[in-house]
Amino acid sequence: MTYCVAAAVDSGIVFASDSRTNAGVDNVAVFRKMHVFEAPGERVVVLLSAGNLASAQGVRSILRQGTLEGRADPAGILGLRSMEDIASLVGETVRKVVSRDGEVLSQQNIDPGCTFIVGGQIGGERPRLFHIYPQGNYIETSRDTSYFQIGETKYGKPIIDRVVQPETPLNDVAKCLLVSFDSTMRSNLSVGLPIDLLGYQADSLRITMTRRYDESDAYVREISRIWSAGLRKAFTEVPDISWS
Amino acid sequence: MTYCVAAAVDSGIVFASDSRTNAGVDNVAVFRKMHVFEAPGERVVVLLSAGNLASAQGVRSILRQGTLEGRADPAGILGLRSMEDIASLVGETVRKVVSRDGEVLSQQNIDPGCTFIVGGQIGGERPRLFHIYPQGNYIETSRDTSYFQIGETKYGKPIIDRVVQPETPLNDVAKCLLVSFDSTMRSNLSVGLPIDLLGYQADSLRITMTRRYDESDAYVREISRIWSAGLRKAFTEVPDISWS
Repeated sequence: MTYCVAAAVDSGIVFASDSRTNAGVDNVAVFRKMHVFEAPGERVVVLLSAGNLASAQGVRSILRQGTLEGRADPAGILGLRSMEDIASLVGETVRKVVSRDGEVLSQQNIDPGCTFIVGGQIGGERPRLFHIYPQGNYIETSRDTSYFQIGETKYGKPIIDRVVQPETPLNDVAKCLLVSFDSTMRSNLSVGLPIDLLGYQADSLRITMTRRYDESDAYVREISRIWSAGLRKAFTEVPDISWS
Repeated sequence: MTYCVAAAVDSGIVFASDSRTNAGVDNVAVFRKMHVFEAPGERVVVLLSAGNLASAQGVRSILRQGTLEGRADPAGILGLRSMEDIASLVGETVRKVVSRDGEVLSQQNIDPGCTFIVGGQIGGERPRLFHIYPQGNYIETSRDTSYFQIGETKYGKPIIDRVVQPETPLNDVAKCLLVSFDSTMRSNLSVGLPIDLLGYQADSLRITMTRRYDESDAYVREISRIWSAGLRKAFTEVPDISWS
């Protein structure tokens, strides 16, 4: 499984992804699910992926081809003129890969689908965040719903619903996404460290805030401990039941 | 959808179930999913059900037949000698109903499966709690895993994992299950009030603690408000992120 989440607020976008992939519980590996395309001062584009790993890698390989050797293909991620064009390109590429591999995989009851979250900013356009479905169509965040999750989405949703608002500071959003990861990793073993975290400050057009959290990181353990203690304390504040 | 949960602790068992059923979002109805069989001073047996509503009702109808008109069929819920025999009877009945209706439903891509949680106490036996799968087989709680959920299980799981231990008092378990419902109902509209709650005190062999919470109940709204505030407070106690 996988858990990836990104939230767009007034001050920018925060992206987070786990790194565990598995084909059955006895075949677990670490793969980075966050991929960054940057032309400093001009654009930042971040991709998060979930679903069939071969399909997701296939999509990323095709997208990378338009950016190799400093070349900025005008029809590629470093050449297109708007984030919406990039969302559309990712969707088309998903369709291409899924239709290439899908028939053979489906015959063996393997789901060929993959899902992407794509966000960032190009030039004077505002920062934008999209969710690309396995069918290649996509949706964008709004002020009412400012985040997208892919993969194992349920355990980590309640805290985001309660904390993330358009005016929430970027660092609080980042902290909230890590708490959301803690709830998810606690309940689903197939979501695991390291966590890649990236904070994009609106209008900076460059990447300045990134972190990778692995098992040796004291902060991740602290979050888990303090959040558990806080939940138990919050529980004691709920009034007792009266049966009559 | 449905959300039902029951937790067995040293002092007894708490059962909780929602009442919303739906066939598509435009066909929503209220059905009780908690069913109680009681012979005061001799036994208490509680059933919670999820899954295909017709299958679940079919199973309950067959089980009720052995208890009509004060008659205690020796092979029925009021006649069998142990909770494990009752779990086995429920499992067999699930198999019977699913095999009766399953072929026609499966042809139309409708899942005929239903799932039960069955718990209670008979005479001198200790209180016991079982989870019956749609295939009719079943598992029992242990001190390591003392609760079962059926239906929409994910949103409400983290708080139970953090609070419920074998030594947790019965009223705290009941409060925890209601908080778990609050998280679930907030994230999945197909889980809804009223909530049926039943606390069974070990060795009482009768039912003394029951409540039904509907929209007019101030306590349910209080839980939601105080729990949300407590979560946000817990969040502020998590230390801030450092990016470097």
